[in-house]
Amino acid sequence: MELNTSRYLETWETFSRIGESASGVNRLALNEHDLRVRNFLAGELSSIGAEVRSDNAGNIFGSLGSADAGYILVGSHMDSVYDGGRFDGMYGVVSALEVARALSSTRTLTRGLTVADYTNEEGARFKPSLLGSGVTSGVFSQDYAYARTDRDGFQFGRVLESSGWLGSEENRLQRHPPAAYIELHIEQGPVLEAEGVQIGVPTGIPTMEVFEVELQGESNQAGPTPMSQRKDALVAASELVLFVRNQMREGDPEVLRATVGELTVSPNVYNVIPGHVTFTLDARSNSDRKLAQFEGAFKDALKETCSKHRLAEHMELVERAQGVEFNPRLVDIVELSAMELGYKTKRMLSWAGHDAQYISRISPTSMIFIPSKNGRSHCKEEYSSDTDLVNGFKTLLETVKRVDKA
Amino acid sequence: MELNTSRYLETWETFSRIGESASGVNRLALNEHDLRVRNFLAGELSSIGAEVRSDNAGNIFGSLGSADAGYILVGSHMDSVYDGGRFDGMYGVVSALEVARALSSTRTLTRGLTVADYTNEEGARFKPSLLGSGVTSGVFSQDYAYARTDRDGFQFGRVLESSGWLGSEENRLQRHPPAAYIELHIEQGPVLEAEGVQIGVPTGIPTMEVFEVELQGESNQAGPTPMSQRKDALVAASELVLFVRNQMREGDPEVLRATVGELTVSPNVYNVIPGHVTFTLDARSNSDRKLAQFEGAFKDALKETCSKHRLAEHMELVERAQGVEFNPRLVDIVELSAMELGYKTKRMLSWAGHDAQYISRISPTSMIFIPSKNGRSHCKEEYSSDTDLVNGFKTLLETVKRVDKA
Repeated sequence: MELNTSRYLETWETFSRIGESASGVNRLALNEHDLRVRNFLAGELSSIGAEVRSDNAGNIFGSLGSADAGYILVGSHMDSVYDGGRFDGMYGVVSALEVARALSSTRTLTRGLTVADYTNEEGARFKPSLLGSGVTSGVFSQDYAYARTDRDGFQFGRVLESSGWLGSEENRLQRHPPAAYIELHIEQGPVLEAEGVQIGVPTGIPTMEVFEVELQGESNQAGPTPMSQRKDALVAASELVLFVRNQMREGDPEVLRATVGELTVSPNVYNVIPGHVTFTLDARSNSDRKLAQFEGAFKDALKETCSKHRLAEHMELVERAQGVEFNPRLVDIVELSAMELGYKTKRMLSWAGHDAQYISRISPTSMIFIPSKNGRSHCKEEYSSDTDLVNGFKTLLETVKRVDKA
Repeated sequence: MELNTSRYLETWETFSRIGESASGVNRLALNEHDLRVRNFLAGELSSIGAEVRSDNAGNIFGSLGSADAGYILVGSHMDSVYDGGRFDGMYGVVSALEVARALSSTRTLTRGLTVADYTNEEGARFKPSLLGSGVTSGVFSQDYAYARTDRDGFQFGRVLESSGWLGSEENRLQRHPPAAYIELHIEQGPVLEAEGVQIGVPTGIPTMEVFEVELQGESNQAGPTPMSQRKDALVAASELVLFVRNQMREGDPEVLRATVGELTVSPNVYNVIPGHVTFTLDARSNSDRKLAQFEGAFKDALKETCSKHRLAEHMELVERAQGVEFNPRLVDIVELSAMELGYKTKRMLSWAGHDAQYISRISPTSMIFIPSKNGRSHCKEEYSSDTDLVNGFKTLLETVKRVDKA
């Protein structure tokens, strides 16, 4: 087994620096940096004898060996958010490429092996996120996907066409699902580092629901309006932000996480009472029952708070991603592979969404996590050490070999 | 005494519609609409025999009669905020003009009478507010004022020069202070209307302090970061918004009003924990002792909250306007004049700042308020009825006559 760690880290450096600037990585889906790295990936895949193709969402697949006895899929995405980090997504693609390279020379697999790069995972350029994996797994229709626009008004379909990466609908994974899909990714949270764990073993992705909440009060001059006559939307919003925070309890196996990440005040002038506030509520749980319970309690609090402050209110579900449980056998194999290599492991939930979420609809799926320094992600401070990168890479390779035999 | 109410209301309509659009009045200081209404005012003043001049801040003064026995100053400002109302400021200038017109024909005054329009009261185009009255009363130096820039980068000094309204430093009020200054204005609050009072008698303007508060936490992905490891600046800010609100008590003769009007979240993305929040705190009181006490308590709460959430914090005073008490004799005369005309009156504080704040430094000063519908101001919904406009106008006229004899 020839495991060339320094070649692995060299490839990693080359790929992950493409699109990097002083403020972070701007490898937005199908922009000039993403196209450059896509061409580079295709070249590397070809050079190890892989057959490279793309589907009608521009997802790239590079296949080795015969798929007569089925094939194993490994990969992730190479697009980034605005001013993102070097590791998110890219780590999984580079590692998949190097697993393919390692196995191509020994030809030890009985099944085929395919490396995947999904288009527009982040949703930073085209909303929603997971667009490429959604199309290839049949979650999104082609028409829906092609009509998505970026902030300059360019449609995904047109951008894809002119990128040169528009492939055949026949190449979608849904038409020939893999026997197993394994995605290696950084944790994007602080848990593994804090607990001294080398390899995280995700058991699933919680359900996520995103709401937009709107509070309508009255903008009046701050000085002359007595406190009792105010309809201050920011005071009400503050009560609701704290309500959300106070609902969170750690330590329960049915975990709930909720965040108010976006809050916008209008007119937002120092001497005017805030008449209008919109905010988002991002709520996630591995228990759909618990999530529904929390949302019910939040809606009650919203009504009560707005009635107290004499505000009008509106609440709308703007995004929902049904949670998934990963394939128990694959999860076991990931855990066993890591332990076999001598790593400390931890079963955990993947709180961020991943392409694995949609691929799991058509194929047995599992993931592998490595630690993220300080849990930072989607920013230039995002970091995982070379040691952790190699640990994850080795675990992916070992997992593929074990899955091949299973 | 010839009191031509319909002529008064006609003049009012003409002046107050200049610069009006569907979204409100945009008569920003020295913009095309402000220049149009200034020329119109100057023409009207000349037509009744007033001598019109401007000082080095572009303030317009139109004087009637001899100032040998001193003169009475009446006026306000004609500039508006962005998308402002028709009444704020303009009401005082139009009424002053019509008082001058009424008295010019009868020549009943023993003192002189001057009508004033101050430049850039609102501070909407050039910060700070009260720029013209500040220069003419000696609060601001000419150099300071001229260096103020609008949002397009144009300096006040240059704009003033090219407007044609740059007058002599000799014409500043500080060089020849009036015997009395009376400013008629809308309340910009809901109190008079709610209590069925026709004429408000302001006794002074509270001290105002504006702070900028900055909270620095950490932006991490909303999903993967456990609640206990978060440094959520918006949760902390929400606690502080509610602290401010809970400090307010109505009914105390030493009144305190504080408002968080502006709050900005960064990065303001639904699935990212808010790492950074800035907000303003506008605090006003007619008791400097009470104001200092509140600010001390707020600073303690800020430290405590930030320590609890492990945030860095910064707080800075960005604006301070020392409160004033109006001249007790003039306040009595305003009250007496309104009562004599049969109006219900109420002594009150002026919670908004006015040019009277700075003119009171060089001259005995008082104000007159009329009701504002629903307390709305600085928006197109700003409204006072014709009856209320006329009531205030009559009170101003009566006050001027009584002051002349006093």
